Amino acid sequence: MAATPSPAAAERPRRTGYRRLPVQQRREQLIAVALELFAARPPEDVSLDDVAEAAGASRPLVYRYFAGGKQQLYEAALRSAASELTTRFTVAAFTGTPTEQLGAVLHRYFDFVDEHAAGYGALLRGGSVVETARTSAIVDDVRRAAIRRTLRHLGVREAGPRLTLLVRSWISVVEASAISWLDEGRQIPLDSLCAWLVDQFVVMAAATAVRDDQTAEVLHHWLRLETDESPAGVLVSRLRDIGM
Amino acid sequence: MAATPSPAAAERPRRTGYRRLPVQQRREQLIAVALELFAARPPEDVSLDDVAEAAGASRPLVYRYFAGGKQQLYEAALRSAASELTTRFTVAAFTGTPTEQLGAVLHRYFDFVDEHAAGYGALLRGGSVVETARTSAIVDDVRRAAIRRTLRHLGVREAGPRLTLLVRSWISVVEASAISWLDEGRQIPLDSLCAWLVDQFVVMAAATAVRDDQTAEVLHHWLRLETDESPAGVLVSRLRDIGM
Repeated sequence: MAATPSPAAAERPRRTGYRRLPVQQRREQLIAVALELFAARPPEDVSLDDVAEAAGASRPLVYRYFAGGKQQLYEAALRSAASELTTRFTVAAFTGTPTEQLGAVLHRYFDFVDEHAAGYGALLRGGSVVETARTSAIVDDVRRAAIRRTLRHLGVREAGPRLTLLVRSWISVVEASAISWLDEGRQIPLDSLCAWLVDQFVVMAAATAVRDDQTAEVLHHWLRLETDESPAGVLVSRLRDIGM
Repeated sequence: MAATPSPAAAERPRRTGYRRLPVQQRREQLIAVALELFAARPPEDVSLDDVAEAAGASRPLVYRYFAGGKQQLYEAALRSAASELTTRFTVAAFTGTPTEQLGAVLHRYFDFVDEHAAGYGALLRGGSVVETARTSAIVDDVRRAAIRRTLRHLGVREAGPRLTLLVRSWISVVEASAISWLDEGRQIPLDSLCAWLVDQFVVMAAATAVRDDQTAEVLHHWLRLETDESPAGVLVSRLRDIGM
């Protein structure tokens, strides 16, 4: 954002040390700096002094913006990251078959995991000193957005208990894979991991479809949009090869 | 346990207010009472007074055993629950095909979830006031035991990254299903939920096997032990029916 004051602010007499626009900018800058630090180190290893230093600001200034100290700054940073991650689910305009689209969204998700590795890991592993009912609620909101987005991607308006269970379970597989991927030093290439997760969705849906009409209908509709060369098409043919 | 002192204790002169065996018994009683309360209510809704009252003891007495207060008692209760849950994975002497055995272990797991609903939910959902790096470590130990046990069940000594990812992911599906099952008021019957989880394991393994030789080998060996009527046999035939 540019540092020009808004027309309204320009009309008001200036008071030293307080201008509306720079306040918001400073806040955003502190959050951005904090996010970068939390991305690289677990929250317990980041102090307010670190944030102040990286922002080229004094400790009292950081406290003026975040009177609640590190916890408040951490939650603001988490909210900002959560909102960015949720945007990655919802950006549309993908082309391709449903499984190709799912693969594209997974790539966006894992790019985020990669960029925010330390913070993502600390948060999802649990037990972090900065974890509270509020931070868990923010994570849950992201999870719920992911579930809603996946159901919308499937063209489902109202999901029954088994379809809901399927989507919740698959989202947990995505999270577990992300943590596992970070823990094991990113051994599995991202392309291959995303492809595996797409395959997991297809087979988890198929194993749900054999016991649930709604899932069967959704899956049937989906598979008709796939081609022999799309992820789902290749998977079905490979499963046949191994006798499934 | 009976209240008889051990022979060694009987030989020692008694000191008023301190006898070795009753101390241990009292401790175990307090943990058992706490476990029951934490099973029925989230930890933030259980006070030390509640524990003292339910145990027929005074608050100072509870503090004498757990000087760290509720947090220490909670962690002791969690450790006790974790150890009981881990036992349920390892008790052997099941008969049947591998998928039948997996179903039996899942039933034990869900009986535990059912008995400890509030505590299990609070812990796995995260953000509880009693959650710390220590409680997360206890939960992680249980998770690691579940992964080890599942790999042993598969006859695997050293799992490669993809087989590890598969098992970790499936364990996360079991946990997500348990939370979902509790959240949705236990709508899906337990038998059916356990059967679904067994099916999920089979198809998740199959979709991993198409990209990983170790998983392919394990799955191949496993499926040879299944019959047409066993869970895996029924699933494969149903998947064929829906064109997978």
